[in-house]
Amino acid sequence: MSHDEEDALLAGALGKFVNVDGAMGRKIIPYAHDAFHVPESRQYDKQSAADRLKEIALSLTPNERAVLEGFVLLCSCGTLETTSFFEFLHWWALCGYTYQGCMDALISYKFKGGQSSFAIKFFKEALSTRKLSYAFNSPVQSISDEGDNVTLTTRNGQQYTGSRLVSTIPLNVLNTISFNPPLDSQRASAANIGHVNQCVKVHAEISNKDMRSWTGIAYPFNKLTYAIGDGTTRAGNTHIVCFGGFHNHLQPEEDINETKKAAQSMAPGNMDIKRLVFHNWSKDEFAKGAWFFSPPNLLSTSLDALRSRHGNVLFANSDWAVGWRSFIDGAIEEGTRAAFTVTEDLRGASTSRSRL
Amino acid sequence: MSHDEEDALLAGALGKFVNVDGAMGRKIIPYAHDAFHVPESRQYDKQSAADRLKEIALSLTPNERAVLEGFVLLCSCGTLETTSFFEFLHWWALCGYTYQGCMDALISYKFKGGQSSFAIKFFKEALSTRKLSYAFNSPVQSISDEGDNVTLTTRNGQQYTGSRLVSTIPLNVLNTISFNPPLDSQRASAANIGHVNQCVKVHAEISNKDMRSWTGIAYPFNKLTYAIGDGTTRAGNTHIVCFGGFHNHLQPEEDINETKKAAQSMAPGNMDIKRLVFHNWSKDEFAKGAWFFSPPNLLSTSLDALRSRHGNVLFANSDWAVGWRSFIDGAIEEGTRAAFTVTEDLRGASTSRSRL
Repeated sequence: MSHDEEDALLAGALGKFVNVDGAMGRKIIPYAHDAFHVPESRQYDKQSAADRLKEIALSLTPNERAVLEGFVLLCSCGTLETTSFFEFLHWWALCGYTYQGCMDALISYKFKGGQSSFAIKFFKEALSTRKLSYAFNSPVQSISDEGDNVTLTTRNGQQYTGSRLVSTIPLNVLNTISFNPPLDSQRASAANIGHVNQCVKVHAEISNKDMRSWTGIAYPFNKLTYAIGDGTTRAGNTHIVCFGGFHNHLQPEEDINETKKAAQSMAPGNMDIKRLVFHNWSKDEFAKGAWFFSPPNLLSTSLDALRSRHGNVLFANSDWAVGWRSFIDGAIEEGTRAAFTVTEDLRGASTSRSRL
Repeated sequence: MSHDEEDALLAGALGKFVNVDGAMGRKIIPYAHDAFHVPESRQYDKQSAADRLKEIALSLTPNERAVLEGFVLLCSCGTLETTSFFEFLHWWALCGYTYQGCMDALISYKFKGGQSSFAIKFFKEALSTRKLSYAFNSPVQSISDEGDNVTLTTRNGQQYTGSRLVSTIPLNVLNTISFNPPLDSQRASAANIGHVNQCVKVHAEISNKDMRSWTGIAYPFNKLTYAIGDGTTRAGNTHIVCFGGFHNHLQPEEDINETKKAAQSMAPGNMDIKRLVFHNWSKDEFAKGAWFFSPPNLLSTSLDALRSRHGNVLFANSDWAVGWRSFIDGAIEEGTRAAFTVTEDLRGASTSRSRL
């Protein structure tokens, strides 16, 4: 199939998948940044992607079903059964309710210097204020709110104290930390359930220059299922990004030959691999997964709880952003919200003091 | 015609208007926030909307032409001859290259409390830092950069001095202020040309409740050409917003009966007017027009000059934003850019000093 044929196939299949309201999802989620605005939208959080596929099964050709499942799993990197259909509709709304919008917002653009270059700019800007102290590689053991102050203790016994604490700890790591007073039961339960994204992202440098703009799907049998040609490396090789997920989970560092084989199976005969680069986010103790993707019944029950403050502890992570949840934009949303809250808090406090 | 038929008519006509590249403008302006990225895009800044209409005249039905001209003039509020076709393509790109995107980004949403409520929140937040001093109703006479400091003098002789000055003076007002040293010739010439938007916005409260979701066009003979039902007022009346522009210019305060007649002609027999509200931005000495819309040959020659710093004077106004130019979002873009520049400047300066 040509690129255009593939696009049309996936666009058509996605249309059938999301069209729950005769308006391609616009009626059920009219505001992507307030996705539960229409109360009926909550019912779709009871459904998994697998449930929705069952509903529309008779209207899908086998090819449509394969590309659709591949695309949904590329978003959630869970399994079809553990992917909330609501959250997929929310992504669809964020992308302007079109396939083209999904390509534009999710896949087409990247930073010239990679995401690290972006993160480094943030960090340098913070450093330049001369108000930033930092410690890396310091797993947190406990967070204790003593009323006037919050104290954080690392596993190696280091302590930090402040009047407010902004926790950016991801959902899947939250239950490894002891809170005093304990987290409310709704948030604790959500943290125990966690999100389902166990994305495996393997970057391959290959010599074949024709693969520059290639897209491949190898689903459901291969351990990497979706691959995209992503430019030319400085060495003149082609950069291919391969994605896999929990539905057929690969631990890429455990057996390099298996990983290589999974990548090569994406395009038999065309993957002369020069180099593989990956990071196992599933095993990373600071992440325990990739970008947030919710199972059914998590967001409709727990989003408000995840966003609420816990005394002097504010929680700011893209995992519970209301708009671009799971994306860097969502992290900025949440960071802004926490910064604003802390500023208001402390200005209020200093006002009270000066009034005494 | 029904709403849907009108939508389809305008969508079809817009498609013909913007489709300069067989890709609905996507190839010629692939990045809305870097609109001159493809050098060939500059040629469309030599064209006016009228020029483009001539090119496609044979493909437009009379109805298509009427709604298309009405919509273009609603965007620029100039004349078809003074509306840059490039700038219209830029708006189209910002809106995701679709009619639906234009409705979503330009027309559908508003602040519950009006734009003033938003501006007041900004102001209150700035006040709460206790670092803001302010003066209103103080027209600026001159801005003088003395190397170490910038001094601003108002027409009533008040002076303010600082190490940097951020000028938010709109393009159409810039040439009423004396700069020392003088502005570079490219910026000065752009300020003398100015932008073309002389929008007349007249709000009418009418008793007819059926007009709640009505849209009307009365073009080209009426002095108000486009009107939109915009909700119900607290008194239970229907709020209608009527737009006019420079092509058939109305000074709404000069003859209230004429203004009333122009509003009533939008929907003869259906406009039982209880109240009219308007502000004449054209005569407002702090604005001299409405939102920025460029004539041909302004942006392609002068955008960089308008964005450049002038010694210790930074220029931050939506009029020369690269993305959402003319919109509040563009003002935020520019305010952020200026704030960042000043912060970098002053941090750099304090670093140098501490190194001495």
